[in-house]
Amino acid sequence: MQARQRPYVALEQEFRDGRLSPRTVLEECIAAIEACETEIGAFAHLDLAAARDQATAATARWQRGEQRSAIDGMPIGVKDVIDTYDQPTEYGSRLFAGHQPVADAACVHALREAGALILGKTVTTEFSGAHPGRTKNPHDTSRTPGGSSSGSAAAVATGMVPAALGTQALASVIRPASYCGIYGYKPSAGGLNRGGVLDVNSQSVLGTLAATLADAWAVAVAIATRAGGDPGHGAVRGTGELRPTQPQRIGFLPTPDWSSAPDDCRNQLTDLLTRLTDTGSNVAWEAADLTELNDSLGDVAESYLGLTGYERRWPLQAYAAVGHDKLGERTVGRLGNRGAYSEDDYRAAVAARHRLRQDFAALRGDYDVLITLASAGPAPAIEGGTGPVAFGSHATFLGVPAVTVPGLVSQGLPVGIQLIGFHDCDHELLDHAAWLDTWLRAQ
Amino acid sequence: MQARQRPYVALEQEFRDGRLSPRTVLEECIAAIEACETEIGAFAHLDLAAARDQATAATARWQRGEQRSAIDGMPIGVKDVIDTYDQPTEYGSRLFAGHQPVADAACVHALREAGALILGKTVTTEFSGAHPGRTKNPHDTSRTPGGSSSGSAAAVATGMVPAALGTQALASVIRPASYCGIYGYKPSAGGLNRGGVLDVNSQSVLGTLAATLADAWAVAVAIATRAGGDPGHGAVRGTGELRPTQPQRIGFLPTPDWSSAPDDCRNQLTDLLTRLTDTGSNVAWEAADLTELNDSLGDVAESYLGLTGYERRWPLQAYAAVGHDKLGERTVGRLGNRGAYSEDDYRAAVAARHRLRQDFAALRGDYDVLITLASAGPAPAIEGGTGPVAFGSHATFLGVPAVTVPGLVSQGLPVGIQLIGFHDCDHELLDHAAWLDTWLRAQ
Repeated sequence: MQARQRPYVALEQEFRDGRLSPRTVLEECIAAIEACETEIGAFAHLDLAAARDQATAATARWQRGEQRSAIDGMPIGVKDVIDTYDQPTEYGSRLFAGHQPVADAACVHALREAGALILGKTVTTEFSGAHPGRTKNPHDTSRTPGGSSSGSAAAVATGMVPAALGTQALASVIRPASYCGIYGYKPSAGGLNRGGVLDVNSQSVLGTLAATLADAWAVAVAIATRAGGDPGHGAVRGTGELRPTQPQRIGFLPTPDWSSAPDDCRNQLTDLLTRLTDTGSNVAWEAADLTELNDSLGDVAESYLGLTGYERRWPLQAYAAVGHDKLGERTVGRLGNRGAYSEDDYRAAVAARHRLRQDFAALRGDYDVLITLASAGPAPAIEGGTGPVAFGSHATFLGVPAVTVPGLVSQGLPVGIQLIGFHDCDHELLDHAAWLDTWLRAQ
Repeated sequence: MQARQRPYVALEQEFRDGRLSPRTVLEECIAAIEACETEIGAFAHLDLAAARDQATAATARWQRGEQRSAIDGMPIGVKDVIDTYDQPTEYGSRLFAGHQPVADAACVHALREAGALILGKTVTTEFSGAHPGRTKNPHDTSRTPGGSSSGSAAAVATGMVPAALGTQALASVIRPASYCGIYGYKPSAGGLNRGGVLDVNSQSVLGTLAATLADAWAVAVAIATRAGGDPGHGAVRGTGELRPTQPQRIGFLPTPDWSSAPDDCRNQLTDLLTRLTDTGSNVAWEAADLTELNDSLGDVAESYLGLTGYERRWPLQAYAAVGHDKLGERTVGRLGNRGAYSEDDYRAAVAARHRLRQDFAALRGDYDVLITLASAGPAPAIEGGTGPVAFGSHATFLGVPAVTVPGLVSQGLPVGIQLIGFHDCDHELLDHAAWLDTWLRAQ
């Protein structure tokens, strides 16, 4: 099955006049689930009956002109590290088999207020960590869908849902979206409220994965306007509509991972940037400030895993204390590293991150957007785990928004083009991505 | 019953040579529980059998010289907004009646690693908010114990436990400690890991309440060294031992709440400061920088409740969606305020807080410690709620450490002296408090 190519938020007039209904959209999703789910394994839990009831109610609201928002009736997949009061939330862990939260996470509560349907919970790696779930890549089931938002990416790619929620502590939204050939949006640090999300990382964010850029943005805005950002942070700002805007000043950011990407991906990206020059964008290839940024990222990249691993020692140790035998092998492997990374190491990494974020903010005067790959090539074989964090993790460390747009092909598989913007300027980044997306589809 | 006056951490030699044992200390606590708990209502849940087993094991460790830490065997009360895998965690809410977390909160996991016993869960206001629990003030059962760490303060004041955990988003550690005549320590923002604590506020911290300053500090250090701080923050630093140090430069901070305190409290505090001058400390009464700080706090104090209320709209709205009829009256009252405070208001409050914190840090060159009242007089009548947040909330907004030391008496009831220090300099603050405490007891 293929994902619906028109954004859900573009169906408004058809919903109003009855040519199409949220109930029909839902049935298309259910047909995709019936066709693909057994093979792909994107969902940890599904509730088709509740979704049908809610879609029927949404259909009536649209027809009465009383829709709650542009996404009223939209079926959404929710990564299974995010609490839902009416569906189990198992965090990809046997320790939490059948675990039923009392209340919704902030983002889920917001989506329901906006009228969206929680069609199901999508498979995640264990605790959003390294131990993979059972999901397969829809483009080649011998490959990983990427992680940790594995099920969300695969569900969207197969048309089971138009949009899904994910989280990203390193590369967990951008990477699976790149591998599955869909759109992924990782907001500015703190931009979407993570209340009720199993996520202890200081640089993590809630993000969206969708079959269209418009829906990825609309779902994020629906959350931001109702649930706000993380405590202490401003929420993602903007209206739900994108205003495609050609970036005038593009910076090419190879990242310290450039050499790890296959030649064909690198060539496709540099060709693309050359063609963008022809359209009137100014592309900086090796500007001094970008070279310096690239070097700085190289200096700290090794600390990403240390920093996030240190933050995750709780809850992992507390889980091990009550159910060591129920933890996955790769999760247990991470537990063994305790002590190798100290509080002083952590303070130094946090301080380095703070400085780098300040330096990065100064680039805003020179660039509208930075562009790089979204992953180090296409999805690798499923046996190796969920793939390297290469390319995807830098924007997380920098705390800035990033989006991946499908556009490259390697080994017959999709690879995303990653656009990186500036903190708290998410709408501007998405507007540039919307322009690029339209331009790419017209080629 | 009265609390044991010697710190648990001073019993080391007696534990080693068998003159005293953690098991004996526990039995003293249980005797206090049998004498007081029915009237005071400090505990939401108790597990005496498990505590006795663990105290017996700790006793054996001390006798073998294999104690895990200075607090091995210490009975601890845990505010019932903090997850425990072996005791229910009900958040003071009927909606969570019987709720059993899968794993321990970070702080509880750390305390168990250090050998401490979780004797029970202490009563909290609903979700640490405004709706009171059933606890009474041990000094006068017609008065509130303060909140939201109500049960923790009352349990310590009656000798049911030598120390307990609390949380403070506004004044919820300092206020109940002041009202109950015990020591309360609120660390620097981010200084103790809140993982597994029901707490969504950006300025909240986990804190300790204890019958002695030494135990309040030792428990905090036991957590900090094992579980670290909040993600993105350094942990409270220091050894577990206090080094009483006379502050040379004391700043008197009346706070914008000064006029709301009874005359006798104000006079006792100013008399105390005058006597401190005689001991050789230099007290600044109306220095320009403190007057400016006081004015700045007055300008923003109104926003404290708005800021914390905005951050709490989730989870309260999600709770209301699934169990409105199970929420307390005062909690429901807060839900009604939605919409009066906007995202722009919130961003402005967070920005103002950030600026004020930076300004406050500059005072470190001029003062070792600031001193003020810990509450606006003694505990008020229980019908009125848990008392005003006056005095206690400023250090929370500033993100700096604060400690309350019992020392004043009004209407025959205790009122605390609050010492406020500088961010990430918690050990220094506690050292000054230890000196003041020793000096006070010698008067």
